[in-house]
Amino acid sequence: MPFAYSRTIHFADTDAAGVVFFANYLAICHEAYEESLGAAGIDLKTFFADHGVVVPIGKSEADYLRPLACGERVTVSLKVQSLSENSYRIQYELSRLGPPAKVAARVRTEHVCIDSSTRTRKPLPPLLASWVAAG
Amino acid sequence: MPFAYSRTIHFADTDAAGVVFFANYLAICHEAYEESLGAAGIDLKTFFADHGVVVPIGKSEADYLRPLACGERVTVSLKVQSLSENSYRIQYELSRLGPPAKVAARVRTEHVCIDSSTRTRKPLPPLLASWVAAG
Amino acid sequence: MPFAYSRTIHFADTDAAGVVFFANYLAICHEAYEESLGAAGIDLKTFFADHGVVVPIGKSEADYLRPLACGERVTVSLKVQSLSENSYRIQYELSRLGPPAKVAARVRTEHVCIDSSTRTRKPLPPLLASWVAAG
Amino acid sequence: MPFAYSRTIHFADTDAAGVVFFANYLAICHEAYEESLGAAGIDLKTFFADHGVVVPIGKSEADYLRPLACGERVTVSLKVQSLSENSYRIQYELSRLGPPAKVAARVRTEHVCIDSSTRTRKPLPPLLASWVAAG
Repeated sequence: MPFAYSRTIHFADTDAAGVVFFANYLAICHEAYEESLGAAGIDLKTFFADHGVVVPIGKSEADYLRPLACGERVTVSLKVQSLSENSYRIQYELSRLGPPAKVAARVRTEHVCIDSSTRTRKPLPPLLASWVAAG
Repeated sequence: MPFAYSRTIHFADTDAAGVVFFANYLAICHEAYEESLGAAGIDLKTFFADHGVVVPIGKSEADYLRPLACGERVTVSLKVQSLSENSYRIQYELSRLGPPAKVAARVRTEHVCIDSSTRTRKPLPPLLASWVAAG
Repeated sequence: MPFAYSRTIHFADTDAAGVVFFANYLAICHEAYEESLGAAGIDLKTFFADHGVVVPIGKSEADYLRPLACGERVTVSLKVQSLSENSYRIQYELSRLGPPAKVAARVRTEHVCIDSSTRTRKPLPPLLASWVAAG
Repeated sequence: MPFAYSRTIHFADTDAAGVVFFANYLAICHEAYEESLGAAGIDLKTFFADHGVVVPIGKSEADYLRPLACGERVTVSLKVQSLSENSYRIQYELSRLGPPAKVAARVRTEHVCIDSSTRTRKPLPPLLASWVAAG
């Protein structure tokens, strides 16, 4: 079942064009990823630090469909898909609440689990593998 | 009555020391300010754009008391105080939820209402003056 | 001829994994875009404000190949390609200086010129069209 | 002798009011601090990571005197002052280049060297102590 995360657009998300800076759409989607991991019982402080095994983003793609202004409410829904025993893809849909609600962006990220010293691929840790399997 | 705003520390708030970057404490407090204005019926999109009258921050002060890590929950309480017919001060207390809860930072900002072309002081717009008066 | 932009990785670019946050690679590439436009005589303050015609990013793609740490020097090279009379694509290559230099990311963005009220496509303004034509 | 650092205001520094977001003045000053440390031979990647001894900012103060727009050039000058064997203050003056040049902000930060586990004060490491002494 897709996970959903909601928040308000902040002033700091915007730029001088009056709307959210394009790279901040990705940061907002990453917040949804963090919330979803946290809801699955993964300790975020440990997960996102470098303790020898890290899961960096290898690719991102984004389609920016609508501008977002300070004070607007958005919801990010997120679906995870396994790519291999050491990698997965996340698809995000970011919607501006309405009525009517409108899709504001679609974002995809690919994550690869590696040893942070050797940069070689490692299997996903068990809790993370369960999170991916739960989709 | 002080306004309270809660949120989780995001990965994007942190820096390579593993905790929230010092300038981001101010950005988090500003989010509380936005929420409080929004709760008072002020349209944030209009308020924070430049439509001739703007209310920039003239001063800020911050005491950073504790580090904050990704995934930790914080609450920001906020009190407003009138300084003149065209200016006000906001005091923020940012606490990390516990148990036990711990104060992580105290921040103050001063805001001055000006004409954005001439940079001369202007009285606060009525809705904003009411928000300040409500404290 | 490709345009090149250099800068040092700042502490604020990094996150708790100790390296540049993935969305900040896009922000660094956007700086290169701004420098290139400025070098072509385009006034950035006017260009990036909303004066009725805006050129938002419709798509972005990024391949993150190497982590970047605070204090490291990077160079971004940039090539522009026309897609239509109202759109263009930029390809960025972000390299960490060496020796040996190593490609750290490849980023692509697509930009579409629109009327900011009606969201309909508009031809590129002349200076921008010249910048695109110069490649 | 004060250290000087120059850079251009980026689009990502700005907010929907069309000028640099207040917290980003502090981030820009921190860049000047990083450059000054790097010029003194301090390895930034190691210095800003947590290897048991960290030098977090305990206080900041800022006076925001002028707005800054995308594309404007700024210079940050920086002076350091010892406060004790484990702490120091930095005063920054951020100027918008002219002609005529105008002071856009004055910022102060206080830094305390601590053991990151026990949070007790520690003497400054030798290279950092030399940097402070050189002022």
